[in-house]
Amino acid sequence: MTEMRAVVVDTPNEIAKSNNDLKLSTIPKPTIKSGEVLVKIVAFGVNRMDLLQARGLYPLPPQAPKTLGVEFSGVIVDVSENSSWKIDQEVFGLAYGGAYAEYIAADQNMILEKPDYLTHIQAAGICENYLTAHQAIKTIGKIKPGSDVLIHAGASGVGMAAIQLARHYGAKNVFTTAGSDDKLNTTKSLPLGATHGVNYRTQKFDEEVLKATQNKGVDIIVDMVGQSYFNANINALAKDGHMIMLGVLSGMVAKEVNIGPIIFKRLHIEGSTLRSRPAEYQGGLLKDFKNCALAEVGKTFDLKIHKVFKWTDIAAAHDCMSNNENTGKIVVTVD
Amino acid sequence: MTEMRAVVVDTPNEIAKSNNDLKLSTIPKPTIKSGEVLVKIVAFGVNRMDLLQARGLYPLPPQAPKTLGVEFSGVIVDVSENSSWKIDQEVFGLAYGGAYAEYIAADQNMILEKPDYLTHIQAAGICENYLTAHQAIKTIGKIKPGSDVLIHAGASGVGMAAIQLARHYGAKNVFTTAGSDDKLNTTKSLPLGATHGVNYRTQKFDEEVLKATQNKGVDIIVDMVGQSYFNANINALAKDGHMIMLGVLSGMVAKEVNIGPIIFKRLHIEGSTLRSRPAEYQGGLLKDFKNCALAEVGKTFDLKIHKVFKWTDIAAAHDCMSNNENTGKIVVTVD
Repeated sequence: MTEMRAVVVDTPNEIAKSNNDLKLSTIPKPTIKSGEVLVKIVAFGVNRMDLLQARGLYPLPPQAPKTLGVEFSGVIVDVSENSSWKIDQEVFGLAYGGAYAEYIAADQNMILEKPDYLTHIQAAGICENYLTAHQAIKTIGKIKPGSDVLIHAGASGVGMAAIQLARHYGAKNVFTTAGSDDKLNTTKSLPLGATHGVNYRTQKFDEEVLKATQNKGVDIIVDMVGQSYFNANINALAKDGHMIMLGVLSGMVAKEVNIGPIIFKRLHIEGSTLRSRPAEYQGGLLKDFKNCALAEVGKTFDLKIHKVFKWTDIAAAHDCMSNNENTGKIVVTVD
Repeated sequence: MTEMRAVVVDTPNEIAKSNNDLKLSTIPKPTIKSGEVLVKIVAFGVNRMDLLQARGLYPLPPQAPKTLGVEFSGVIVDVSENSSWKIDQEVFGLAYGGAYAEYIAADQNMILEKPDYLTHIQAAGICENYLTAHQAIKTIGKIKPGSDVLIHAGASGVGMAAIQLARHYGAKNVFTTAGSDDKLNTTKSLPLGATHGVNYRTQKFDEEVLKATQNKGVDIIVDMVGQSYFNANINALAKDGHMIMLGVLSGMVAKEVNIGPIIFKRLHIEGSTLRSRPAEYQGGLLKDFKNCALAEVGKTFDLKIHKVFKWTDIAAAHDCMSNNENTGKIVVTVD
């Protein structure tokens, strides 16, 4: 068998105009190289970058195949020579692309063994949210017990993962922002939830943070909002604080930035996208996450899966995200 | 003897209106606490922050005494119990203040033994420039052999130290900016000098950097210019590049900052001031500098001492810096 089914963008130039351009079709089945394992995919997660990629709007890393999909869970069906992985092992992991398919040639460092207490549907929705949050909070932000943390867009997938990880790593105050009290309540009602919610429509988050910390500010900010928050983020940071920038939802041009406090407060500002990182980095991150936090996922940590779609309904799955209907992960099963 | 001579600001509110308000006078001689040694000062370095402090314009760290002076060289005349330092050892080091005096109670972690081949005048001029540059290039910037580096204000004391340290640590291209070809020639004619000079009056440094690196950009930027360079710095940085901000000579408010590349290029932006750091940090930095680079100072590294003043001429020493007459260190001897 040298072919398999996969989701393709069914237009002449392979750029989608609408979610209905996503169709199941037949493409060549991948073959594994040294250092890879072949995984039969059971479920994959849907991410906003998939929507952008389908429309030709995502800057792809050079390793990415053209098939969508950056996280999956499934069963190993072939291994390369000298692999420590075995056929029939159940695994989940990260990919540069190619997860919207029956099979994926996965880098053996970018997968973890799926714990028995997690289903493939649960495991398929872990990696992007939790590894992105773990990278921000721990690898870059260097969280310590007692740290004060501010997570923007707290009701997003990455936001909820970051809130729970921050609490798991011993954060004292975990502030979060959202645009409605409903969303703030969702972030606060997690078993390891936010301790303070700030509704950005009615409150200024830097003022609230400084008030609640006796003007100290927060040690770590995880931001995906960008330009409209940049100045207030600098204002809300404590001495030696870290701002980790993961996105620019509000735009890229910050006006009138007061850079003095970057020096006087010795701030660290660092940007990152997980998908652009080399396999060794992603592999190291997965191992660290496994050692420090994986055991909590689906137990203390609430995974918040919004809805599971069959892959024959892939257009509906993308519609759900396009329309911002979800508060939690969208997972798709491969039959 | 419980008194000593020191430079004081001889005005009713101890804030100088002119450099002539700096006078020699008598103040209490410091006594040492556990972890300190008493040093009889032979020479001290003059720094721009001393001029600001004399005018009441420098935000002092809480540990700072009111006497000026953050670097010195001298002879140990008293040690606290269990000290590994010995009376009569010749040392040089960093201080939160108090170096414009006959004696200083120095933190035992913030001094190094003076090598025999350096005079006290040379040793007094090392710490602020070289430790600030070492912190930027190595501790924060994580320089590696082959790194491309951009040092702004290359003809300044910190600038020349950073250029030479970068070359010492194996940098490939070392770009520097200055406002005259004379200054650029000074930076390029150092034994371990800049490889590329950019005259900011006639050239755009980001364009020159990108041209010379085939659009890769530089891995490390050391900046003390601030607002007017902020955007071009972001533009000139390579993927995973570090911008270390040490000053804001041009001002603090960057008008329109394109923050997108901070994420897409995974940039690190970090501010620092050496004087605000805890003694353990400064001590660690001194030890690392001693192990990695001290042996080159005064040998491969050109120390560039502009002029030596007697401390009875302290006003003239400050005039020299106020008037920007120096291209190199101003050192003052204590008789």
